Amino acid sequence: DIGADAMNAIAITARSLGDAGKVYLERIENYRKYLQKTDKCVVAGVTDVKGDRHLRPSDPKQAHPDFHLRIVEKRKDGIVLRGAKVHITGAAYCHEFFAIPCRALSGPEDSDYAVAVAVPANAKGIRQIVRPFHGRISVDEFPVGSELRRMHTDSLIIFDDVFVPWDRVFLCGEWQVAATCVYNFALMHRRTGCAYRIPMSEQLLGIAVAIADYNGISGAPHVKEKITEIVIYLETLTALSRSACLDYVMHAGIPVPNPITTNIAKYHFAHNYHKIVEIIQDLAGGLLVTAPTYRDWQNPETRADIEKYLQGNPEVSTENRLRMFDLVRRLTSGDLETICLHGEGSPFAERMTILMEAKKIIAKSKKLVEDMAGIKK
Amino acid sequence: DIGADAMNAIAITARSLGDAGKVYLERIENYRKYLQKTDKCVVAGVTDVKGDRHLRPSDPKQAHPDFHLRIVEKRKDGIVLRGAKVHITGAAYCHEFFAIPCRALSGPEDSDYAVAVAVPANAKGIRQIVRPFHGRISVDEFPVGSELRRMHTDSLIIFDDVFVPWDRVFLCGEWQVAATCVYNFALMHRRTGCAYRIPMSEQLLGIAVAIADYNGISGAPHVKEKITEIVIYLETLTALSRSACLDYVMHAGIPVPNPITTNIAKYHFAHNYHKIVEIIQDLAGGLLVTAPTYRDWQNPETRADIEKYLQGNPEVSTENRLRMFDLVRRLTSGDLETICLHGEGSPFAERMTILMEAKKIIAKSKKLVEDMAGIKK
Amino acid sequence: DIGADAMNAIAITARSLGDAGKVYLERIENYRKYLQKTDKCVVAGVTDVKGDRHLRPSDPKQAHPDFHLRIVEKRKDGIVLRGAKVHITGAAYCHEFFAIPCRALSGPEDSDYAVAVAVPANAKGIRQIVRPFHGRISVDEFPVGSELRRMHTDSLIIFDDVFVPWDRVFLCGEWQVAATCVYNFALMHRRTGCAYRIPMSEQLLGIAVAIADYNGISGAPHVKEKITEIVIYLETLTALSRSACLDYVMHAGIPVPNPITTNIAKYHFAHNYHKIVEIIQDLAGGLLVTAPTYRDWQNPETRADIEKYLQGNPEVSTENRLRMFDLVRRLTSGDLETICLHGEGSPFAERMTILMEAKKIIAKSKKLVEDMAGIKK
Amino acid sequence: DIGADAMNAIAITARSLGDAGKVYLERIENYRKYLQKTDKCVVAGVTDVKGDRHLRPSDPKQAHPDFHLRIVEKRKDGIVLRGAKVHITGAAYCHEFFAIPCRALSGPEDSDYAVAVAVPANAKGIRQIVRPFHGRISVDEFPVGSELRRMHTDSLIIFDDVFVPWDRVFLCGEWQVAATCVYNFALMHRRTGCAYRIPMSEQLLGIAVAIADYNGISGAPHVKEKITEIVIYLETLTALSRSACLDYVMHAGIPVPNPITTNIAKYHFAHNYHKIVEIIQDLAGGLLVTAPTYRDWQNPETRADIEKYLQGNPEVSTENRLRMFDLVRRLTSGDLETICLHGEGSPFAERMTILMEAKKIIAKSKKLVEDMAGIKK
Ligand SMILES: Cc1cc2nc3c(=O)[nH]c(=O)nc-3n(C[C@H](O)[C@H](O)[C@H](O)COP(=O)(O)OP(=O)(O)OC[C@H]3O[C@@H](n4cnc5c(N)ncnc54)[C@H](O)[C@@H]3O)c2cc1C
Ligand SMILES: Cc1cc2nc3c(=O)[nH]c(=O)nc-3n(C[C@H](O)[C@H](O)[C@H](O)COP(=O)(O)OP(=O)(O)OC[C@H]3O[C@@H](n4cnc5c(N)ncnc54)[C@H](O)[C@@H]3O)c2cc1C
Ligand SMILES: Cc1cc2nc3c(=O)[nH]c(=O)nc-3n(C[C@H](O)[C@H](O)[C@H](O)COP(=O)(O)OP(=O)(O)OC[C@H]3O[C@@H](n4cnc5c(N)ncnc54)[C@H](O)[C@@H]3O)c2cc1C
Ligand SMILES: Cc1cc2nc3c(=O)[nH]c(=O)nc-3n(C[C@H](O)[C@H](O)[C@H](O)COP(=O)(O)OP(=O)(O)OC[C@H]3O[C@@H](n4cnc5c(N)ncnc54)[C@H](O)[C@@H]3O)c2cc1C
Repeated sequence: DIGADAMNAIAITARSLGDAGKVYLERIENYRKYLQKTDKCVVAGVTDVKGDRHLRPSDPKQAHPDFHLRIVEKRKDGIVLRGAKVHITGAAYCHEFFAIPCRALSGPEDSDYAVAVAVPANAKGIRQIVRPFHGRISVDEFPVGSELRRMHTDSLIIFDDVFVPWDRVFLCGEWQVAATCVYNFALMHRRTGCAYRIPMSEQLLGIAVAIADYNGISGAPHVKEKITEIVIYLETLTALSRSACLDYVMHAGIPVPNPITTNIAKYHFAHNYHKIVEIIQDLAGGLLVTAPTYRDWQNPETRADIEKYLQGNPEVSTENRLRMFDLVRRLTSGDLETICLHGEGSPFAERMTILMEAKKIIAKSKKLVEDMAGIKK
Repeated sequence: DIGADAMNAIAITARSLGDAGKVYLERIENYRKYLQKTDKCVVAGVTDVKGDRHLRPSDPKQAHPDFHLRIVEKRKDGIVLRGAKVHITGAAYCHEFFAIPCRALSGPEDSDYAVAVAVPANAKGIRQIVRPFHGRISVDEFPVGSELRRMHTDSLIIFDDVFVPWDRVFLCGEWQVAATCVYNFALMHRRTGCAYRIPMSEQLLGIAVAIADYNGISGAPHVKEKITEIVIYLETLTALSRSACLDYVMHAGIPVPNPITTNIAKYHFAHNYHKIVEIIQDLAGGLLVTAPTYRDWQNPETRADIEKYLQGNPEVSTENRLRMFDLVRRLTSGDLETICLHGEGSPFAERMTILMEAKKIIAKSKKLVEDMAGIKK
Repeated sequence: DIGADAMNAIAITARSLGDAGKVYLERIENYRKYLQKTDKCVVAGVTDVKGDRHLRPSDPKQAHPDFHLRIVEKRKDGIVLRGAKVHITGAAYCHEFFAIPCRALSGPEDSDYAVAVAVPANAKGIRQIVRPFHGRISVDEFPVGSELRRMHTDSLIIFDDVFVPWDRVFLCGEWQVAATCVYNFALMHRRTGCAYRIPMSEQLLGIAVAIADYNGISGAPHVKEKITEIVIYLETLTALSRSACLDYVMHAGIPVPNPITTNIAKYHFAHNYHKIVEIIQDLAGGLLVTAPTYRDWQNPETRADIEKYLQGNPEVSTENRLRMFDLVRRLTSGDLETICLHGEGSPFAERMTILMEAKKIIAKSKKLVEDMAGIKK
Repeated sequence: DIGADAMNAIAITARSLGDAGKVYLERIENYRKYLQKTDKCVVAGVTDVKGDRHLRPSDPKQAHPDFHLRIVEKRKDGIVLRGAKVHITGAAYCHEFFAIPCRALSGPEDSDYAVAVAVPANAKGIRQIVRPFHGRISVDEFPVGSELRRMHTDSLIIFDDVFVPWDRVFLCGEWQVAATCVYNFALMHRRTGCAYRIPMSEQLLGIAVAIADYNGISGAPHVKEKITEIVIYLETLTALSRSACLDYVMHAGIPVPNPITTNIAKYHFAHNYHKIVEIIQDLAGGLLVTAPTYRDWQNPETRADIEKYLQGNPEVSTENRLRMFDLVRRLTSGDLETICLHGEGSPFAERMTILMEAKKIIAKSKKLVEDMAGIKK
């Protein structure tokens, strides 16, 4: 998980500092033991709010110097930090968090930004502004046992002059290795990401196959083509993700996933994701956004109509078809996208029309090249 | 609008029937006058629920014969219809609806399915099951004057033996021209669709440009590339959409939009829509899904933190940036998509890493071809 | 054609200079009359050899100052030019050529590069190094009446201190309007390009349709999809190309094609061209590169074997099929590409295998989401 | 190589026949020893000429029954074969060839087509019609030591009633396992293909990097993007190709590469190949097809001009730049494609213009959404 990814990144960074890093390595080791003993849960605050993305943290043109987390005071017993970390998943319900730099630093004037620490979530000066990731199964949807789905929150964490004692400080001013730290974090974290994206892609394949089947169109050639596309998507992710492990490289004596294939794997997933969603919504059809709700299903006055008319594949119950629409909607969440695809007819309907209508052009063009080829008829 | 598209389709169909169609043309003309006089609002019910999509309407293998709207009785004073139309936008708040066939029919055994009528929304035997298209601006979002956005509902309309008097019947058994009817409807309706999709695409371009600006990244080369992509998307749609009008063709003496370019226009819009959404979410960054809510903005305890830390482009207020995130989220609605893009780093970050990491492979490959080219250094 | 495009660009540039441009306008007018009277053929030399593309023409870091055509001497009777124009189509067999700048200039130090002239092809100091565009129909191919195809040459034209009398000088030092000149040339020339690319795209559609037919696979769904793709390609080009004319804008009082759609049209053509070639080679199959040659066809010992075995669609003669392969090869010229596509099996064969082989994964993924949807079986 | 792939396929097929296959296994083993002892070179003839691709081999609607290789006589001492194999690489200069079926067979009426044999290239009744794959380095190109490149020939091999003795017959009528045979051949052969396509892709990456460098544009952002694309192409191929081996499966007790990832790997290579070629030709620029020839380089009259004017990156000699163009042309062979890309300006030039020109539309669209977001300025 993200905590482990951050801890490994700090450890590699400390090692890369040679003798100067030994004290950090010791502190990390102690902290690790502390976590094990107390069974505490840690999240990692890496992403800074950044401000103007074209300026370095200490650039005087930044509206203020606090867009990246920084050391505002060094004391005998520790350091004081100011700034904010953003998008931090799970921060609202963890015990501790790591804070590490989110970018390379390019000179000594940025050294106050080279800081890595662990702080308790309830440290003095910490404030969180939390946004829920909407995940509640609504009353309009078929219940599925649990009433939540993949629910989490993301936090904006404010460091309002937070004191951190020395034994929780793992980087403090060494601006040259900020790059090492964020780089190794990103590397390991993207690999972690790939790991859970494989089952996620299996779900995408699954809903595509299921809804095609429930709609009764599995046998159509264009549907097969589309399913093939998702298989390629999934298997390519898997192959890349594994290569990332097999071709590991050593960073400061610690094996890390291969930087090229790790990044390609994550990029492959992200860059093709919308295309896969498009396929799934295409296969689902308009009912994805217009199907009657669970409440209408429960209503004795409307149940029979729904049951009778919304059957697709005769071997699948209407209830199951509606349940699958609910899941597809939860997993692809694109109301507008579906309208865009299916409003006024499905893409395939348009393609068929195009071809049919182009008959004359097609014939004319063929004639043209037959003449060019010296073909007489 | 969709009512006019259906009426035109029926008129073309009637004309294509020659003398046999004259009575229908007359009834359509009367109905048109009736609508004008009473200022009634009509929607069109075209899409049938269809059942098994590989079987014709009357195929005995269909679970029941009512998956497409059909004539169950012909009486002296009119006809009686059974079946269901699905996805009908606005049916919940219109006065009347047209029902026309949604597919070609291939033989006399399907002639009961060749039926086009107009019925009042409150005719006896009509039942609607309505799904709202979620469009309420939530309390978590910045208010924008109106509290709703592009709100509508879609209905499943049940025809439970609905009686239609002869003067509202525009097709009744002529299975050979069902194709003409649905074809011309689709054609005109897709052109209508293109028309409102141009401003919709302008909105997409707009949110991309605005959020890039508010994030302070407008000048980055990859951002320019992405904006260019959306410009191409929009202008291609516009050019195709206009060609569809300029190259109109005559169907039964009525000019209709060009069938090839109309379909290409709609397909172009739909098929590339997800790619455009991907670009926008890419440019927006993770705040699209993790930004503090409007309620936190209103809260005096958290307002100052948000204001200070979530500034991007120094020339844009934090409030405006947050407002724009709200709009982007409303228009692209892809929570999961954004996570998929930005979780663990943005796609561009990955691409940059890939390139940087591939240095050795790049050098090796270059050496290889220099040898092949006979280049000595 | 390119000469007219250059002449119009110069005229617009002259007009944009106001009074200062009047003398140029007059000269252009005289030159135009001269061309009409003598019926001379002109080509345009726009593209300079450029050297280091990141440096301006006069930058001292350029290896020498002659990478862009420049004025080396101004005399009473005219000017002397040095430099080289590259890629000039048809220069080897024309009477005259225009030379105009190929880039914007950013300051007075570049004013010697702001030069537009007309010179006879045989002016003193002009040297041409010519490369033939290989276009001969080889003895291995079926003859088609003419023995050449779309044959032309491209020249590197050296200006070795070429003297140009004042009445052929149309721009001389006005660096501020070099941009106007090249911009308007590019605009008009890209529109010209679109014009001949429409029939070119029709040829691409034609060979795809013809070879699919001759191979006997026109009815296969994936083949229809591929033909549809080329129809979309062609029609989109046509629509954009026309919009470019309809939405013309005025530059210095002269109507010019719309800059946005002109560029999108050309970009659309170029950017999707390789995809279209891929489709055609896919449809053609391996015979595109392995078919027996015309010489073997003529050979009485081998003719019968070829005739018998290389028949595809039974309604097309083997000779015609072979002729079409020859044309496809001439028009898409991708030996390696075809091998890459078809060596070890066609792409579609691979896709089919992928799908078939993924059965278990597909089933597993489907099961997964059925559980998630609360579906019991 | 292909011979080994065929032999393994036959062995798996024989094993899958159980006891009935033992005699074949023995013969294969003997033949393998014979090859080792005599050091003979074998190629595989798999692809039949096929005729009408929608009909099975024995279908009476085929113009004749010989479109797939078949047994026309079974004799005491062996069998007699008629038909033709096509596209057979290297057949003109090998000692022996395998012939195996190229498709699944669906019933006993096709059993004469279930035949696998080994025959000497000079067996009685064998005729070859050979096409050279043009690979000669022309006199217009810089010499590179050898005067040939990747030269080979492909043959149409006619079996005009060729006798094969029993000890060279490995399949004879068992139509049920024709599928097993071709399937396993395709599988192993596609993996073989992937293996040599990795260095081929390295060459593609190499020429892209080299020509970008020689043109002096390596630092441009869009160039970096394009190089990144090829890196992704190469590494994805490598990861898939390795997965194909690591995830091997057992067929009849013999380990074979993973069918899914093998096919995805080959498909990935083929399907994206044209896009990669497009990138390379884009980076190369127009000189790829218009550069002066080696003969002009050798000519003392023209050498100095070429040397002076065709320099790009000042650190690369003009000679090396020209050599690299020669190699790029040999490896991507797309004269027309380059013209299509670069004629009238490079794609990037068009994109830049599009963006610049769209300023007003961009501003208007932005304004639109700012209003929608409730943003006041
Ligand atoms: C749901 C979710 C959960 C997350 N959880 C965590 C977490 O637990 N811990 C954590 O540390 N982080 C977390 N993240 C943060 C994630 O790593 C970032 O979202 C990601 O790195 C992108 O950063 P950003 O959101 O600030 O976007 P930005 O960096 O602002 O990107 C927006 C756009 O700007 C472009 N851009 C940015 N800077 C430049 C530049 N200098 N030049 C050119 N273009 C530029 C980008 O390419 C992109 O197109 C989470 C993100 C999400 C969406
Ligand atoms: C928001 C919204 C509003 C709408 N408003 C209206 C309206 O007001 N009036 C109206 O009449 N309609 C309306 N529609 C309906 C719209 O026209 C249909 O959604 C569209 O025609 C697709 O039909 P479908 O939803 O039944 O999907 P389906 O036809 O079920 O398509 C699902 C998938 O199955 C495939 N498929 C279907 N049949 C076959 C086959 N025989 N062979 C191979 N593949 C097949 C499709 O290609 C697609 O991939 C609306 C739709 C939406 C989404
Ligand atoms: C340079 C080269 C070297 C080769 N070397 C060898 C070799 O040494 N030995 C050997 O055995 N083979 C060899 N091959 C053959 C190679 O495996 C075939 O080219 C490949 O399998 C495609 O077959 P085809 O060329 O007959 O094309 P076709 O099968 O005719 O394909 C042409 C198009 O028709 C489509 N198509 C074909 N049949 C159908 C159908 N039933 N339904 C729908 N669509 C269909 C295809 O998808 C494709 O789009 C070589 C090929 C090349 C190009
Ligand atoms: C067959 C043919 C015929 C032609 N006929 C004529 C003609 O008759 N008259 C005429 O004037 N021209 C003619 N041209 C020239 C044509 O307009 C040019 O090829 C085109 O403008 C591209 O220029 P280039 O070939 O110098 O390529 P380059 O400009 O060198 O482009 C190569 C690559 O470098 C990139 N690049 C170049 N400069 C930069 C930069 N500053 N920053 C970032 N990237 C950069 C490009 O994007 C491209 O990817 C012809 C071209 C061809 C191919």
